[in-house]
Amino acid sequence: MKEQVKPANGKLGILIPGLGAVATTFIAGVEAVKKGIAQPIGSLTQMGNIRIGKRTENKNPKIKDFVPLADLNDIAFGGWDVYEDNVYVAASKAKVLDAELLNAIKPELEALIPMKAAFDKRFVKNLDGTHIKSFTTKADLAQQVIEDIRNFKAENNCERLVMVWCGSTEIFQEVTDVHQSLEAFEAGLTENHPDISPSMIYAYAALKEGVPYANGAPNLTVDTPALLELAALTETPIAGKDFKTGQTLMKTIVAPGLSARALGVRGWFSTNILGNRDGLVLDDPDNFKTKEVSKLSVLDEIFRPESNPELYADMYHKVRINYYPPHGDNKESWDNIDIFGWLGYPMQIKINFLCRDSILAAPIVLDLALFMDLSKRAGMTGIQEWLSFYLKSPQTAEGLRAEHDIFKQLIKLQNTLRHMMGEDLITHLGLDYYQELVDSIQ
Amino acid sequence: MKEQVKPANGKLGILIPGLGAVATTFIAGVEAVKKGIAQPIGSLTQMGNIRIGKRTENKNPKIKDFVPLADLNDIAFGGWDVYEDNVYVAASKAKVLDAELLNAIKPELEALIPMKAAFDKRFVKNLDGTHIKSFTTKADLAQQVIEDIRNFKAENNCERLVMVWCGSTEIFQEVTDVHQSLEAFEAGLTENHPDISPSMIYAYAALKEGVPYANGAPNLTVDTPALLELAALTETPIAGKDFKTGQTLMKTIVAPGLSARALGVRGWFSTNILGNRDGLVLDDPDNFKTKEVSKLSVLDEIFRPESNPELYADMYHKVRINYYPPHGDNKESWDNIDIFGWLGYPMQIKINFLCRDSILAAPIVLDLALFMDLSKRAGMTGIQEWLSFYLKSPQTAEGLRAEHDIFKQLIKLQNTLRHMMGEDLITHLGLDYYQELVDSIQ
Amino acid sequence: MKEQVKPANGKLGILIPGLGAVATTFIAGVEAVKKGIAQPIGSLTQMGNIRIGKRTENKNPKIKDFVPLADLNDIAFGGWDVYEDNVYVAASKAKVLDAELLNAIKPELEALIPMKAAFDKRFVKNLDGTHIKSFTTKADLAQQVIEDIRNFKAENNCERLVMVWCGSTEIFQEVTDVHQSLEAFEAGLTENHPDISPSMIYAYAALKEGVPYANGAPNLTVDTPALLELAALTETPIAGKDFKTGQTLMKTIVAPGLSARALGVRGWFSTNILGNRDGLVLDDPDNFKTKEVSKLSVLDEIFRPESNPELYADMYHKVRINYYPPHGDNKESWDNIDIFGWLGYPMQIKINFLCRDSILAAPIVLDLALFMDLSKRAGMTGIQEWLSFYLKSPQTAEGLRAEHDIFKQLIKLQNTLRHMMGEDLITHLGLDYYQELVDSIQ
Amino acid sequence: MKEQVKPANGKLGILIPGLGAVATTFIAGVEAVKKGIAQPIGSLTQMGNIRIGKRTENKNPKIKDFVPLADLNDIAFGGWDVYEDNVYVAASKAKVLDAELLNAIKPELEALIPMKAAFDKRFVKNLDGTHIKSFTTKADLAQQVIEDIRNFKAENNCERLVMVWCGSTEIFQEVTDVHQSLEAFEAGLTENHPDISPSMIYAYAALKEGVPYANGAPNLTVDTPALLELAALTETPIAGKDFKTGQTLMKTIVAPGLSARALGVRGWFSTNILGNRDGLVLDDPDNFKTKEVSKLSVLDEIFRPESNPELYADMYHKVRINYYPPHGDNKESWDNIDIFGWLGYPMQIKINFLCRDSILAAPIVLDLALFMDLSKRAGMTGIQEWLSFYLKSPQTAEGLRAEHDIFKQLIKLQNTLRHMMGEDLITHLGLDYYQELVDSIQ
Repeated sequence: MKEQVKPANGKLGILIPGLGAVATTFIAGVEAVKKGIAQPIGSLTQMGNIRIGKRTENKNPKIKDFVPLADLNDIAFGGWDVYEDNVYVAASKAKVLDAELLNAIKPELEALIPMKAAFDKRFVKNLDGTHIKSFTTKADLAQQVIEDIRNFKAENNCERLVMVWCGSTEIFQEVTDVHQSLEAFEAGLTENHPDISPSMIYAYAALKEGVPYANGAPNLTVDTPALLELAALTETPIAGKDFKTGQTLMKTIVAPGLSARALGVRGWFSTNILGNRDGLVLDDPDNFKTKEVSKLSVLDEIFRPESNPELYADMYHKVRINYYPPHGDNKESWDNIDIFGWLGYPMQIKINFLCRDSILAAPIVLDLALFMDLSKRAGMTGIQEWLSFYLKSPQTAEGLRAEHDIFKQLIKLQNTLRHMMGEDLITHLGLDYYQELVDSIQ
Repeated sequence: MKEQVKPANGKLGILIPGLGAVATTFIAGVEAVKKGIAQPIGSLTQMGNIRIGKRTENKNPKIKDFVPLADLNDIAFGGWDVYEDNVYVAASKAKVLDAELLNAIKPELEALIPMKAAFDKRFVKNLDGTHIKSFTTKADLAQQVIEDIRNFKAENNCERLVMVWCGSTEIFQEVTDVHQSLEAFEAGLTENHPDISPSMIYAYAALKEGVPYANGAPNLTVDTPALLELAALTETPIAGKDFKTGQTLMKTIVAPGLSARALGVRGWFSTNILGNRDGLVLDDPDNFKTKEVSKLSVLDEIFRPESNPELYADMYHKVRINYYPPHGDNKESWDNIDIFGWLGYPMQIKINFLCRDSILAAPIVLDLALFMDLSKRAGMTGIQEWLSFYLKSPQTAEGLRAEHDIFKQLIKLQNTLRHMMGEDLITHLGLDYYQELVDSIQ
Repeated sequence: MKEQVKPANGKLGILIPGLGAVATTFIAGVEAVKKGIAQPIGSLTQMGNIRIGKRTENKNPKIKDFVPLADLNDIAFGGWDVYEDNVYVAASKAKVLDAELLNAIKPELEALIPMKAAFDKRFVKNLDGTHIKSFTTKADLAQQVIEDIRNFKAENNCERLVMVWCGSTEIFQEVTDVHQSLEAFEAGLTENHPDISPSMIYAYAALKEGVPYANGAPNLTVDTPALLELAALTETPIAGKDFKTGQTLMKTIVAPGLSARALGVRGWFSTNILGNRDGLVLDDPDNFKTKEVSKLSVLDEIFRPESNPELYADMYHKVRINYYPPHGDNKESWDNIDIFGWLGYPMQIKINFLCRDSILAAPIVLDLALFMDLSKRAGMTGIQEWLSFYLKSPQTAEGLRAEHDIFKQLIKLQNTLRHMMGEDLITHLGLDYYQELVDSIQ
Repeated sequence: MKEQVKPANGKLGILIPGLGAVATTFIAGVEAVKKGIAQPIGSLTQMGNIRIGKRTENKNPKIKDFVPLADLNDIAFGGWDVYEDNVYVAASKAKVLDAELLNAIKPELEALIPMKAAFDKRFVKNLDGTHIKSFTTKADLAQQVIEDIRNFKAENNCERLVMVWCGSTEIFQEVTDVHQSLEAFEAGLTENHPDISPSMIYAYAALKEGVPYANGAPNLTVDTPALLELAALTETPIAGKDFKTGQTLMKTIVAPGLSARALGVRGWFSTNILGNRDGLVLDDPDNFKTKEVSKLSVLDEIFRPESNPELYADMYHKVRINYYPPHGDNKESWDNIDIFGWLGYPMQIKINFLCRDSILAAPIVLDLALFMDLSKRAGMTGIQEWLSFYLKSPQTAEGLRAEHDIFKQLIKLQNTLRHMMGEDLITHLGLDYYQELVDSIQ
């Protein structure tokens, strides 16, 4: 397969619907890294290593030295937002990064002006967009976004593009008739079908243009037959959904550990406090529902109660999100986990994660953008399950259970990279080391 | 390899030096499980599943249905202790299990009387053994233990034996000349060499008899050239060291998660409070040193600061154990983890684990005993690194870095079982599912 | 005043509407204490001391040796419930106390059969009462309760009675016309006015009979002009409302400490998880509202933001209660407190209280019963603010701010006892000790 | 008494041995407050209110408007340190306050140059002083400090002075012969007696000059017969010892709450992590001993196990301090409290306090300085127990138990102020409000 991967020549444009806290932290960070004043911590593509060959070979290169990724200096940023603030102003208002850091890259950030957003307040009740596109039909709206994409590519002299959704969580939706085929979807665009959300319009535009699309929110977007069909037709990678940060990140770390040791779980209570715009949006029950479904699925998929009913069938799982302005972007979670061990004896684990939402999400945006671009160059089409490492609700082929265990996700990601580059997959068997040892003694 | 694994016919004797809280909780638990009044939660051999074949095949048998393990009804227990209490009395004093449960299996437990221990107070300062063997030389002492083993096997009509150390942490020791070869070691036994500890005498006796030996404490025991040589000569499996429970278990779950996401760590402060006999022994600085070395190594091996200096080179790691009688066996840990992400922004994780030491350790004793027996029947000799899943300080071939990441350890364990039974190893690649999907659409 | 306090001769009947977890834990505990098999921990009347005189006098008697209280052996219990279980069965179902303890007092508990309850599902939506009184008008219902009271007194040969509400939280109510005078209230009883709740009917019946009434729930009951009028007419003590346990207890301990040191508070987030019947009732928003109002008032009254706007005016206070069955009666709270100090620098306090709801409430029932009886014998009529120590939402005279600081409440309680017994009130001034010291040196 | 209190005319000099994190945070803060760019949060003298008269009078003035205190604009700062850094440099190195804040008051801070310190490495093993006085005898050294005091007063045109020790914790010491009388002490100065520590020399110099002395460390200093005698002779107020911040502050808040409710305590485990110079000094066992004694006494004095043996006699109390550089001045504590309630049922409280050591200590320095000056002007001599509110180990008259309950300490402080100003002491009795209420109804 190695021969098939095309090199990362020319510029890569990263297009972002939603230039809020996450996106501006991502963009500002890349600019700061390019200036050498900060490091892209948390990004596998920039900081991560990958073991190659046997343990005794000690080959552990950086991922970016192992697979051909776009260089940070070859990236152009663009995006849409419902507010007209440039990225410097938006980043300042988000209060994630220090004023000092932002000032060091002020010219670069001020130059980034959002395009008018495709917006529909019905899908995000607690926001009031003011910088939005006028349109007659949703087909017209999609066409405007397609024009934005083409103009951006030309103006920025880009060879390739990717799109990463960093906008808000939309209200809860399920697949209806209009999502069942590309034909029905395109008819729906023309008829202004109410079940077509703004995020679907961005995704449709991207896929039409062959631009990989990654979904950072729990919205129903590319996980529909219609857009899967379009992705297959235009040979475009897609990935989703919902950036895995904070509490769910911690859950997909700790739950596999409990499952590994066959410890039972009676209850898992998770609460969050956060005070950013995301918290405000999720204060509406319809939007919270979308997030809740995404967050709740995680444990069942890791514990598989149907295989282990004695351990997990009676688990009570509750997730709460509380809008708490004093903490701003410093999302904080508290988990109470009621487990039981040998002979059923109970124990408890309490985890308090004082995290920063956008700081955890920003490197995910970078990695998804770079890896989606790699997928495209490697000729990989449709759902990129190997990127489920980054996502709360991994999209999979129909009928295939999602893997939520972050460690299995990591092996999948790494073995996919090894596979791309023609290296041996790693199984951690390693019996050979010991055969040699015993032989040498005997 | 599948053809090589001999069946588990006849009785398996499990011999235990140290019939304290852990061992009595293990024995009582197995008896309760046999009676159907409790479940062996936390034991992979009894409760764990293993995926076989592709994800879509949905083959996920119990491990005990996949590999030939000794049945719980075919186990005989024996052991040594420095106190003469029978297992019922010792379990009652340990205050781990309810009186009601213990009473339901009282006859079985009362029948188990410890043999006199090989003891040397120099190695465990805070204990005063009263039920101990007299001896002239350590060679004589070793011979007494060998006689115990033979008598036990005959009296209990066992086909096979394994030994699992559940005794105390001995004082800190490093390899000296007397441990460098089997010849030097046997000379040392005769000369009463001070660097030969009681645990080494038990291990020597076991290996001489071809009995697999697993080391549940951080003691220097089978991790010496002398005993490795003996294991190779008698074709005996060994494994060590230090049961991975409580705080270190949690550490080898959480640290791989941080490393997976390339998050930096500035500091990790771990404190423990426990009030059982283990806590009393570790209240002595020389004994704590042994435990501390075992506990401290974990993070360095997972984070590999030499490969990721920007993330982990300046990590400050501190571990404290505090004897706190009010908690008894209910060991409790509190960890403060100072991490940093994107652009170096700091975050914190606090974990409070209200655990029960012996409840977490007991199923490890069971699994190690059954898997060591399986190794022996599979013809695997010497260090069983695939069992490092259960151990704080995995013993490896010289020059081979130990793997502490519990998830890599689990894959190693599972792929070893698959390898034994002639099944495909699992790599989590799974690209084929998606090729089919895209093909079907296109 | 000391001469006015009548002695505690004869039997005291304690009548309880609501024989659930709290009441049965209270009754079972008193029986266990009488048998000498347990201690009444948490009860000031039984275990608490009170300092008398100067610090150097070292006079620190038990409260029960200082004021004339009813003896535990002179108490008779009675009550009403919507389920017909006797107290032994109800206590067993509540799963607060061990089976072993309950069995030791089984005959005493089995003998206590609830009277049929005055019930109206409209006020407690999540409960379905089956053991309830039939009635035509609420006046008729009140008369039935009065008959119950008289019968109980006669049958149990009681000299005196008190009533303590241990029933559920009713839906949120505010004072309306029917509560504005005794005349309007009695007309409302006859007309079946919908704003008259079951708790008001019990209270009315008690006060008519001159029986002191303490309100353990946040319900609107005796805090209305109508029932205040009745209490004054019949010279009956009343106290309310809402037993102060768990999180609010902790809040009224910690908040005065922050206020004492003039530390600012930006936010206080409180969450609770509990799985008992109380949790089920509070899972309904209308019932939670009543509890929320009671819980939220606490901080404002302690911090007084109007006097200290720089410190407390912008405080964000949020309280959540989550029904979480795995914990049963073991209510657990987690508080995140965002404070700021010198020059505005932020700090945080996190408190995790693993408590037991009924264990904390039961001694409050006892103390309120005994102290209310004392009040009656001391000729104290109407609101007993000196008992606000035990209550989340202390009832006060109109226009008088409630004191929530538990330490001021304790001084009020203790100085009231000193005042009753003619002892000097304590001011903690103590300058005299030092004048003597300096004089002796000079 | 009100007539006796002299007004606060002219300048007040605050002299500080030890210009480290606490002192520089204090000084920088006062300068920032004077400039109007920050607020003196945490200071009772600046932000606190005091209730005067009956609750219904609503008289709640600021303390600084109630008693005559020195104005912040009338303060001059001076001090000694073992390093020659000016206060700006020292504050920058301490990393407590932001660079931005420090720069706004840079000229004022740079002008403050420490005088050479009286130092003896024997008493603070982990520090290496370089900016220290040469001397022949300790009497000579004391005389040098006296000259420093006089020069400072003259140069800064001060009317009055106070001294507040902000230096390190010295090694553990007990009273010996040389401390038994002023005569013995002065002989010891001449003979270079090894039991006379640097802190005693500063205190001696201050008291000789009639300058009030407050002891912010747990050192044995003015709590000796010798210096008590000197304070009485020169009519000088003294106070000590050990600023009450962080964990002990929290303990003296929470423990009185448990005691108030007569809840039992089986164990209290306290651990601290801190990384500032204070943490480095306390990493030495001899210095930790001094701190440990100060920290341990708190609980016994609050719980009084001799009066309540059923509740507190078996309490196990352990305090640990860990030097943990990643946290710098951001001291953090974790407390595990094992309590028991009704019938002995166990519960737990966990408190995690993410505090800032110097931010909590700085306002204490200010309050002690201003209140000590007030004491002097009010003619109060010797031990000022009313200031024990601020101190971990309150100094009292011999034979008089210290009061550690922060709420009793607060009442003592407030009633002392009321007493000074001729106002009624507050007892929180308040029965009169209710008599009126009942009378009005009847």
